[in-house]
Amino acid sequence: MREDWTVVEHGCDPEQVARRGNTFLIGNGYLGYRGTLEEYGSKQLVGCTLAGLYDRVGEKWREPVNAPNGLFCRVLCEGEPVAVFAPRTEIASHEQGLCFRYGIHFRNTRFRLADGTGVVVSAERFACLEPVHVLAMKFSFSVSDVRTVAVETGIDRDVWDLNGPHLGGFRLVARDRVRVLEAYTQEAGIPVATAEIVLDPEGVFRDGGTSEAGHRLYEIRAEPDRTYTLYKFVAIYTGKDVADPVSAAADACMRSAAAGYEAMLRRHRELWDARWAVSDVSIAGDPEAERALRYSMYQLWIAAPEHAEALSIPARALSGQVYKGAVFWDTEMFMLPFFLHTRPDIARKLLRYRIRTLDGARRKAAEYGRRGAFYAWESQDTGDDACTLFNVNDVLTGRPIRTYFRDKQIHISGAVVYGFLQYARATGDDSLWLEGGAEAVLECARFYLSWAYYKPDKDRYEWLDVTGPDEYHERVHNNAYTNAMVRFTLHTACELADRLRKRYPAFWRELVDRLGFRRDLADIRRMLKRVYVPQPDDRTRLIEQFDGYFGLRDATPDELKAEMLHPHEYLGGGNGLAAHTQVVKQADVIALLALFEDDYPVEARRANWDYYEPRTEHGSSLSAPLYALVAAGIGEKRKAYEYFMRAATIDLTGAAKTHVGDLYIGGTHPAANGGAWMAAVHGFCGVRVGDDSVRVAPALPDGWEAVELPLAAKGGRFALRLTEGAVRVRADDANRGSVPFVVGGKTYVLRPGETIDVRLA
Amino acid sequence: MREDWTVVEHGCDPEQVARRGNTFLIGNGYLGYRGTLEEYGSKQLVGCTLAGLYDRVGEKWREPVNAPNGLFCRVLCEGEPVAVFAPRTEIASHEQGLCFRYGIHFRNTRFRLADGTGVVVSAERFACLEPVHVLAMKFSFSVSDVRTVAVETGIDRDVWDLNGPHLGGFRLVARDRVRVLEAYTQEAGIPVATAEIVLDPEGVFRDGGTSEAGHRLYEIRAEPDRTYTLYKFVAIYTGKDVADPVSAAADACMRSAAAGYEAMLRRHRELWDARWAVSDVSIAGDPEAERALRYSMYQLWIAAPEHAEALSIPARALSGQVYKGAVFWDTEMFMLPFFLHTRPDIARKLLRYRIRTLDGARRKAAEYGRRGAFYAWESQDTGDDACTLFNVNDVLTGRPIRTYFRDKQIHISGAVVYGFLQYARATGDDSLWLEGGAEAVLECARFYLSWAYYKPDKDRYEWLDVTGPDEYHERVHNNAYTNAMVRFTLHTACELADRLRKRYPAFWRELVDRLGFRRDLADIRRMLKRVYVPQPDDRTRLIEQFDGYFGLRDATPDELKAEMLHPHEYLGGGNGLAAHTQVVKQADVIALLALFEDDYPVEARRANWDYYEPRTEHGSSLSAPLYALVAAGIGEKRKAYEYFMRAATIDLTGAAKTHVGDLYIGGTHPAANGGAWMAAVHGFCGVRVGDDSVRVAPALPDGWEAVELPLAAKGGRFALRLTEGAVRVRADDANRGSVPFVVGGKTYVLRPGETIDVRLA
Repeated sequence: MREDWTVVEHGCDPEQVARRGNTFLIGNGYLGYRGTLEEYGSKQLVGCTLAGLYDRVGEKWREPVNAPNGLFCRVLCEGEPVAVFAPRTEIASHEQGLCFRYGIHFRNTRFRLADGTGVVVSAERFACLEPVHVLAMKFSFSVSDVRTVAVETGIDRDVWDLNGPHLGGFRLVARDRVRVLEAYTQEAGIPVATAEIVLDPEGVFRDGGTSEAGHRLYEIRAEPDRTYTLYKFVAIYTGKDVADPVSAAADACMRSAAAGYEAMLRRHRELWDARWAVSDVSIAGDPEAERALRYSMYQLWIAAPEHAEALSIPARALSGQVYKGAVFWDTEMFMLPFFLHTRPDIARKLLRYRIRTLDGARRKAAEYGRRGAFYAWESQDTGDDACTLFNVNDVLTGRPIRTYFRDKQIHISGAVVYGFLQYARATGDDSLWLEGGAEAVLECARFYLSWAYYKPDKDRYEWLDVTGPDEYHERVHNNAYTNAMVRFTLHTACELADRLRKRYPAFWRELVDRLGFRRDLADIRRMLKRVYVPQPDDRTRLIEQFDGYFGLRDATPDELKAEMLHPHEYLGGGNGLAAHTQVVKQADVIALLALFEDDYPVEARRANWDYYEPRTEHGSSLSAPLYALVAAGIGEKRKAYEYFMRAATIDLTGAAKTHVGDLYIGGTHPAANGGAWMAAVHGFCGVRVGDDSVRVAPALPDGWEAVELPLAAKGGRFALRLTEGAVRVRADDANRGSVPFVVGGKTYVLRPGETIDVRLA
Repeated sequence: MREDWTVVEHGCDPEQVARRGNTFLIGNGYLGYRGTLEEYGSKQLVGCTLAGLYDRVGEKWREPVNAPNGLFCRVLCEGEPVAVFAPRTEIASHEQGLCFRYGIHFRNTRFRLADGTGVVVSAERFACLEPVHVLAMKFSFSVSDVRTVAVETGIDRDVWDLNGPHLGGFRLVARDRVRVLEAYTQEAGIPVATAEIVLDPEGVFRDGGTSEAGHRLYEIRAEPDRTYTLYKFVAIYTGKDVADPVSAAADACMRSAAAGYEAMLRRHRELWDARWAVSDVSIAGDPEAERALRYSMYQLWIAAPEHAEALSIPARALSGQVYKGAVFWDTEMFMLPFFLHTRPDIARKLLRYRIRTLDGARRKAAEYGRRGAFYAWESQDTGDDACTLFNVNDVLTGRPIRTYFRDKQIHISGAVVYGFLQYARATGDDSLWLEGGAEAVLECARFYLSWAYYKPDKDRYEWLDVTGPDEYHERVHNNAYTNAMVRFTLHTACELADRLRKRYPAFWRELVDRLGFRRDLADIRRMLKRVYVPQPDDRTRLIEQFDGYFGLRDATPDELKAEMLHPHEYLGGGNGLAAHTQVVKQADVIALLALFEDDYPVEARRANWDYYEPRTEHGSSLSAPLYALVAAGIGEKRKAYEYFMRAATIDLTGAAKTHVGDLYIGGTHPAANGGAWMAAVHGFCGVRVGDDSVRVAPALPDGWEAVELPLAAKGGRFALRLTEGAVRVRADDANRGSVPFVVGGKTYVLRPGETIDVRLA
């Protein structure tokens, strides 16, 4: 078991430290703790990123707060630090690893000191799934000769900050055996309490006082080849969680200590087992793909805001402060499907975040002279847009480049609507509409209404001056993807209006009156008949990405790369190398085809895939999974598999851009992880949830003998087993109703406990 | 007299050579001959630019053809060249000058050779007004000691070319005493014949054979302090002029020789006197302004296509190949008024060029998926746009910058319409409408119709994604100037339709049927009621240059200059320093106020002048005259005078940009010259020709005691004399009808020969 679910790397390469911080990240939705070593500091990008807590210092970006590092720990041998990257220590062997089945980080390092002493340091840690405020660590060492050894541990303030420091007013408080470091965010003065308790189960250590850095020293005259162990619990609470974070953190430490490390770990593992029970995908015949997909799901799970009412997942999850800890369209378009079909209650929390931030979206629309809801391109706590107008610096001149991510990516509102509709479709549950989802959808439709222009000579409505998913081409007209999202949104608003009016007439009346939406709805219905969405050309079947795209200079990403003057040069912006060519940053027309597959015949999908693929740089991690998905749908198994693996392994290999201009954009890629799941489940397994039924039509990659996966759909749970020639679906005994499955062209209505076994022609 | 009408400069500074080439330019509308010395070559930018003859080599720009230099001439003393910038010669004194009353270039240079010999070289030349194919030169020298001197002269091929060589297939032909160099343009194979004849009136020179460069040597044993003189006539004909250019050029040389230099000069001066009789403005009390204004008019006269049927004036006139020899909106907006009120027959030729190139404008509209006529931003022979999509190179990276001059400056079509309307208004002549002007106007209106979008929630039509006169802000929405030009065009089309239908019903029926314009006209009438033109704010009275302009970073041109990394850095384009600030390149809102002065109260004009002036870089020579004009209208005499002088002296001082990016843009500035005339006559003299009358309301700058000027208007000619307190107008005896003049609030209908003398309150 351990082999399948573990990532282990050997040796210590400074070049790998940042990437390992992501690969070996642990987390529980409340916090993410980077995969750094216990002795690391800010230079090695130590970070304990708190979900949903943002702070801003001066004119710099607002970004998530990294808590002080309660897990800091290192060995001093005869007063000399024994640590990776410490002077006068040689590393005989080092392994760092992660058990991603249970989110347990571990390290084992054999040091050889200048005097020949061998020191072994081992540690293991996890971010408890219950309670999510607690981090637990087991820290051990042994020495080859009798030595005076101290373990230096404390709450270290030397943590990574992009635009910090975000905490001030530090105060160290002692509560019984717990020490609590109290601090306050700079902007809003929100208290953040980090508590630690150290356990010495054998009672062998003596108090060595305080280190230079103010940490405590646990001292011992160590005997050779005996392993000494300390346990540590760290608890973090903020003023957003409770009124008195100091007490809450201290109490959590005490309670964890009382329960003990093993008991805490046991409960933690039970909760992870429950997660895998509803999500694990086994792929017989391809252990590599299986492992990558499981690892991808791990990354999603550790970011899942299970503890919250209404919280979403940032684009770099909880791996740090990159991208301002902001939520992008990534959530609705790439992460949501995984949760919809495993834990729809978590999907619901993600969407509630969009309800909670609706007023921010309204403010943004008003700021741009529009009505309705224009969701933030980079959304933090309030829904106001954190995206700056000059988002990238030109590496050639050092000057800021005007980018139009914030102003022109109007497709974001459509992504939110798409999220809500996916929820309703996957769960069959109307309640989120009533809780605010309907209001959000209507306001998004109203926003598109107010962006629309009518072209009299063509008798159609157009959406002008927008940026599609391909950010290298800003301020374009009639981006096919965007216009399709507009039409989808207007259509959804009309359908929803009909449904709510019929089923919830009082609710509907109140909503429509409160929003003053009657006339808008009439306008939307009228407009819907005349929405212009660029269609495949009759002859070539190609969809033009936007007005005039085909007239741009034809080029490939490699050709542009040869023209680059600096490796981090930004290819977009007003005068970027790609901006005036056909090189696109990421799936754009292909994103449209992935979302609205059924609207386009396979020949059109193939023609566009073949055209756009060699012109796509995949400069965003969102690109590969969509290329995989569309390739799977047109039977291009090999290419689909390549793009799927590229998405699924992105945080294992770190094969993603780390810089745009002079901007560091490293971190984890939960959207690619979610996209890998989509490629596997929607793509290869052909599992698609429609309005009325679940369709299963597997087209497995070569070597995939059988796939087994659990699936939540339409309020029930199902176990699927798919091979190239057969589909088995078992409805859970506890299901409350029947759900129609369409397999091999036939519909089977699965009652609770029922199993179907269909051979495919 | 000579002092007033002459520009003389002393000394030889290599840095001044390019500028002097412009300042001392001579020309006659058929050709421009740069103000270089007789011994200069391509390095000193010798150019004889032919109007309307374009050629293209390979992938380079199409640009005007420079003829071989028939005026090449230099002295060899004992075989050694005696020339400016020649080695081993010292210049004791040098003057170069221009009599701009008659367009006569002269130079006097005293050389001191290494052996102490003094050599004086003098020359004088003019580009005949009749025939325009002929250049005449008188070339003299004297020596201080007995020396063997040769005059080397011929048709030199070493001339300035930006993207040449444009001529090939050279063949030297002898015709009697004339030598003709025949050549052909590269692209279209059009023959160009340059003929020369050398006259030795005293018969003192002997044939010295041929120089190394293939020129002829006229040799003499020169006596001390005696002046020896040769005369030379050069004639140029192309295949666009006649079927046999070689014979035509040879004949022209022979005829000129037969007439003799003095007779040719006499006729030339008569024709110039006739020009000044209809245009000279005398300004009592301010000889400096008077001289600058006369010089400005000189620059316009030497570019006037008097010889042609339908030809316009390039933005750099005939001073070289800069800006591709292309015609811009400069002609209609800045040069036309001068001709309208001096020689309306020349104004007509300029506008006929737009009729001749209407099909090119139609092709351009179609290229951009529009209907009607989208005139070329840079128009050459066919009206197809010579403007490239990447018009400037980035000096920081060497990369081309995407500019939207060609695609988005839709105001060009409005400028053409404005030109036609000005003609009709100034002359009272309908015939140009019938000759094609009406068709051009309707097609321009149709173009704007097809660019329009309707904004449903605002119930108005908008013009989106355009570039106004301020080219630093490309791709903006609802540029106030552009939208005003659109409304003006649609309005003009409607008024014209009414007029033609009433007065020329058969013509109108044929036109409207041929163009299929009935439905468009109905659409235009409907649209006209809903055209959005940004208006002055109720409180601030400011007009926003385009949607969102006031939201841009506020900055001044000086602030941006401090940020520049290179002196020639282009401030516009996608990421130029000005592009995302309020710094504007040139008058834009102020251009609107200059054109439609009567539509805006003086307070609004003042508020906008005060706001935009400190934010304007005047990066185009078109800017200053418009700032002068509007300043004059709001009573800001001092500021108006400053801007007027800046415009009027631009080609004397050369105080204009010579580079944009790595692009050389030096040359003369006929638009600024015409703008100076507008500022003086429309602005200070307050002479405005309306639909039914001529208004005269002087507001003279301090020190201008009296202004006298002739004025052509409404088919008549008038002599005006203005002081701050009085206006005298005399109608020419030869006028055919009466013209109403409005002076001091009263209307006076001037019959032929009548004079009014009005004291102003």
